[in-house]
Amino acid sequence: MPIVTVKLLEGRTDEQKKALVEKVTEAVVETVNAKREAVTIVIEEMSKNHYASGGVRAIDKN
Amino acid sequence: MPIVTVKLLEGRTDEQKKALVEKVTEAVVETVNAKREAVTIVIEEMSKNHYASGGVRAIDKN
Amino acid sequence: MPIVTVKLLEGRTDEQKKALVEKVTEAVVETVNAKREAVTIVIEEMSKNHYASGGVRAIDKN
Amino acid sequence: MPIVTVKLLEGRTDEQKKALVEKVTEAVVETVNAKREAVTIVIEEMSKNHYASGGVRAIDKN
Amino acid sequence: MPIVTVKLLEGRTDEQKKALVEKVTEAVVETVNAKREAVTIVIEEMSKNHYASGGVRAIDKN
Amino acid sequence: MPIVTVKLLEGRTDEQKKALVEKVTEAVVETVNAKREAVTIVIEEMSKNHYASGGVRAIDKN
Repeated sequence: MPIVTVKLLEGRTDEQKKALVEKVTEAVVETVNAKREAVTIVIEEMSKNHYASGGVRAIDKN
Repeated sequence: MPIVTVKLLEGRTDEQKKALVEKVTEAVVETVNAKREAVTIVIEEMSKNHYASGGVRAIDKN
Repeated sequence: MPIVTVKLLEGRTDEQKKALVEKVTEAVVETVNAKREAVTIVIEEMSKNHYASGGVRAIDKN
Repeated sequence: MPIVTVKLLEGRTDEQKKALVEKVTEAVVETVNAKREAVTIVIEEMSKNHYASGGVRAIDKN
Repeated sequence: MPIVTVKLLEGRTDEQKKALVEKVTEAVVETVNAKREAVTIVIEEMSKNHYASGGVRAIDKN
Repeated sequence: MPIVTVKLLEGRTDEQKKALVEKVTEAVVETVNAKREAVTIVIEEMSKNHYASGGVRAIDKN
């Protein structure tokens, strides 16, 4: 039943995403006593022109 | 005023999405006493490499 | 696999929420060819001081 | 620490998005006493076939 | 049509939230050419035990 | 920069939430090459009358 959403800047490889999903699922199962098959993970990629911190987008930083 | 977000694996036809939006709006109007024009629906498609259950992404299931 | 989030102003009865969940699930199953048991729905209530349209919160409208 | 998500119909220029991020960050810093560098903003574009109000998608309105 | 969600640590006054909603709406209207009445804002408060950065929750920082 | 949201049924202890945040941060840092201090995690608890799968809310399952 846990639903995990991970927002990331684009640019990760497929292998990194696969590992992310495995390790985060593991972390959730271990700590909150959820069944593995009940854990859902969604990755949402952000492009550099759509993510900002401090008022400056990633694409506008040097 | 109800804001509905529907996350779906990619692969639905445009006709399916149109019907989804109509039927979900109907369901919300009927049950929570909202005005039809006040119901907002957003569809968010997930690619198969970005959705996982049980630690395995949709793209990695055979 | 569809994950549906419904944001609503607080004030609905438990019966309304139960009906909402049933009807929206039905609408999703019918239209996008998902299995009933794969549909997840989350209701998120908004208080009137936390929801605004047109720059005015629900609590500040007369 | 504030995390702001802005969902918009696609079609805005890059200049508009840059200005959006700057002005919204400003608005948050001014009003809730957050440090500028602690404000995160994510823009999420919606395509016209994925956004509906009143049961009709933007793409289906004439 | 823009839908803005602002996640904040709890502890802001009602006046701050009212001002937040007004100023953020203004910022959106000015920059992306949306009609004022079409802008929706949702505030979501996070408690200090539910927000973490760098692996440490706000409540666990001294 | 990764922003992780974890939706969970209510009922976890504070110790479980603390461990969740630590382990999930670890998992993200390890797999996608993010700096620890750049990882943000938000826990969102769902009450049993606001979460459903297969059209039945957790509170209505026996």
